[in-house]
Amino acid sequence: MVIALTTHTRFANARLADGSLVDLTVTDGRFSAITPAGKTAEDTAAIVDLVGQLVVPAFVEGHIHLDTSFYGDAWRPHIPCTNGFDVRERVAFQARNLAAAAPMAERARNQLELCVGNGSLAMRSHVMVDASVGLKHVETILAVREKYRDLIDIQLVAFPQGGILSSPGTAELLDEALKLGCELIGGLDPASFDRDVNGHLDVVFGLAQKRGAGVDIHLHDGGTLGLFQVEEIAARTKALGMQGNVAVSHAYGLGDIQADALEKAGDMLAAAGVAIMTNAPGNHAFPPVAALRRAGVTVFSGSDNIRDSWWPYGDGDMLNRANMIGYRSGFYEDHELEAAFDVVTHAGAKALRLDGYGIAAGARADFVVMPAEHVPEAVVAVPKGRTVYRAGGAVAKDGKMLR
Amino acid sequence: MVIALTTHTRFANARLADGSLVDLTVTDGRFSAITPAGKTAEDTAAIVDLVGQLVVPAFVEGHIHLDTSFYGDAWRPHIPCTNGFDVRERVAFQARNLAAAAPMAERARNQLELCVGNGSLAMRSHVMVDASVGLKHVETILAVREKYRDLIDIQLVAFPQGGILSSPGTAELLDEALKLGCELIGGLDPASFDRDVNGHLDVVFGLAQKRGAGVDIHLHDGGTLGLFQVEEIAARTKALGMQGNVAVSHAYGLGDIQADALEKAGDMLAAAGVAIMTNAPGNHAFPPVAALRRAGVTVFSGSDNIRDSWWPYGDGDMLNRANMIGYRSGFYEDHELEAAFDVVTHAGAKALRLDGYGIAAGARADFVVMPAEHVPEAVVAVPKGRTVYRAGGAVAKDGKMLR
Repeated sequence: MVIALTTHTRFANARLADGSLVDLTVTDGRFSAITPAGKTAEDTAAIVDLVGQLVVPAFVEGHIHLDTSFYGDAWRPHIPCTNGFDVRERVAFQARNLAAAAPMAERARNQLELCVGNGSLAMRSHVMVDASVGLKHVETILAVREKYRDLIDIQLVAFPQGGILSSPGTAELLDEALKLGCELIGGLDPASFDRDVNGHLDVVFGLAQKRGAGVDIHLHDGGTLGLFQVEEIAARTKALGMQGNVAVSHAYGLGDIQADALEKAGDMLAAAGVAIMTNAPGNHAFPPVAALRRAGVTVFSGSDNIRDSWWPYGDGDMLNRANMIGYRSGFYEDHELEAAFDVVTHAGAKALRLDGYGIAAGARADFVVMPAEHVPEAVVAVPKGRTVYRAGGAVAKDGKMLR
Repeated sequence: MVIALTTHTRFANARLADGSLVDLTVTDGRFSAITPAGKTAEDTAAIVDLVGQLVVPAFVEGHIHLDTSFYGDAWRPHIPCTNGFDVRERVAFQARNLAAAAPMAERARNQLELCVGNGSLAMRSHVMVDASVGLKHVETILAVREKYRDLIDIQLVAFPQGGILSSPGTAELLDEALKLGCELIGGLDPASFDRDVNGHLDVVFGLAQKRGAGVDIHLHDGGTLGLFQVEEIAARTKALGMQGNVAVSHAYGLGDIQADALEKAGDMLAAAGVAIMTNAPGNHAFPPVAALRRAGVTVFSGSDNIRDSWWPYGDGDMLNRANMIGYRSGFYEDHELEAAFDVVTHAGAKALRLDGYGIAAGARADFVVMPAEHVPEAVVAVPKGRTVYRAGGAVAKDGKMLR
């Protein structure tokens, strides 16, 4: 799929987040000029009149699982664990489901087009690496990524869904996944899953150092056990000089603790440059977004699972995710709604270390146009009538792909 | 606005919630026959082919405030209370906002069309009655209701937003509101607002008895104070023989208590026939939907405030509300997603004592058609491409009014 770049286009009467009405000139896929509306000198640019609609940077989908969704495939009813939640039992359920599912590449494409249709043009996907599936998932998703490279930027996390120490051979597979093209190494509840925090983190950070990879660890452990591991990850990040290149996903423990402990944890995370990913999960405490942001922590978000063996929810819409983050965080004021929006845009771009992000001269012209007066209204109304532009070319409208 | 009834129409190939594919025949606004698809004898009916789309009864919007929303009017940024949440301060903020807002009838119509567009054709709205606004809100909303009577069934609650005992003259105004046409009398935190549980409930239940009205009380008080008032309301309901005609809205206290106390409360509410309304509020504990349903309690839902002085959220979409109830309740299995859907359909109809509700021969043909395989998928996907039928005639499509 090759995107034919519109080489020189002026998007007239665009409403920016600060309320200003501007003309956005795009040249060779990047914003070349941003000028007050109606005051731009005429030239050869093709004109697209946005009639005052809101223009925002494309959303950042910071946590998704491209390999395990059944979106667009047959409905697979959720079955609970037999005796309370158990990751290993869920993984076994997932293996049975995947064996009966449509080809992985097809399911991944369904999810990608759902996300792009909603306005996400950059994404971090975790991809399962374990002794049973080996590198099959990674190889498949790498091929899908290649086919969609003109449409969406995807970074991949080699994700040890079956643990590392408790699943012999996984460390070598993770190393191989990084060599194949995964940019980050993942982890999974070092304490509750592998029962060895230091041993698990030795492998994760060791491979990250060896391959120059980033780190993004799934951490579901709650309470003080979760907090302890957050501290360990932050300490290693700082010691290894990996500030800005490490994230903890979910970090439920940060949602369980008292204000004083949270303040300490926030300062530590900010100093270590460790980002926190939360999807404002359904019936679960989650990291306090406002308090962490106040401490200087980069908080980003993602859909997480979309209609898979873990839960049936997920819509691949990061604007709706901003709504959920705001709703569940009690964000009512405009600046709070703007903070929720920042989580799915600029903060996400920072966590994913994206280059040339935003509505700014020189940035890539990846943007979303929608009927909203301003960002707070967009966050509460979640308008679905959006047009998504990649490098200045329309790629989706009203949730449907245009090419 | 008069709806021209299509006197005899067959909606062919309708997918019902039980998975069956049927033809729905509508005669003079009601379902006259439901027969297996393709096996219906030909007659003079006009044919609408639903091509296997899901058909569900129109949603029940069980708690809304038609008088106070700014939906469709200017954006009014939220301002927090100066020293923690305070109902009186919020009411004062609301009064300032309303003084500057578009005419109430216009704002009420905006909300009604939003709700109908999303598929709600029955509604319970609270309408403010207090010493400062008197009966103005009630009179305005009664007139709006009259204009929309062919489109949506609306029942009104005379709502003492400023308290009863602490706002002299309110009891008389509430009585007058019931005489004017409100079907229910409301209440507001008898303990924390009026500081007199029995005194407040004496007025509420006294007027309900005097006028043969139903009761729907706003109860935000949490913990044991909330639980105590729930018990008092249930005891009075039973003593007065008002089973099935009383509801408690919000009832946050039920979300705070331990399993054993909850079980006792659930049994008491079920025996007293007191329904519980929850909108699965943002950052707040709320009544446990599954446990209450198991106890036999009717749990219904509503948008509550839509973009008003209390919060900026709300979309008037009861299918999205079912999604939120499921998401926040940890409902993952099909039967759980179906329970969330029941809350916004049949349970709502029971709480509102609607006659002739549902997809059944003899019931009014108020239904919603949407592209979903079944109810669980509808709850997680929240498809917006719906067609809404009132008495067998299409009134809205893709969220937009057709007439």
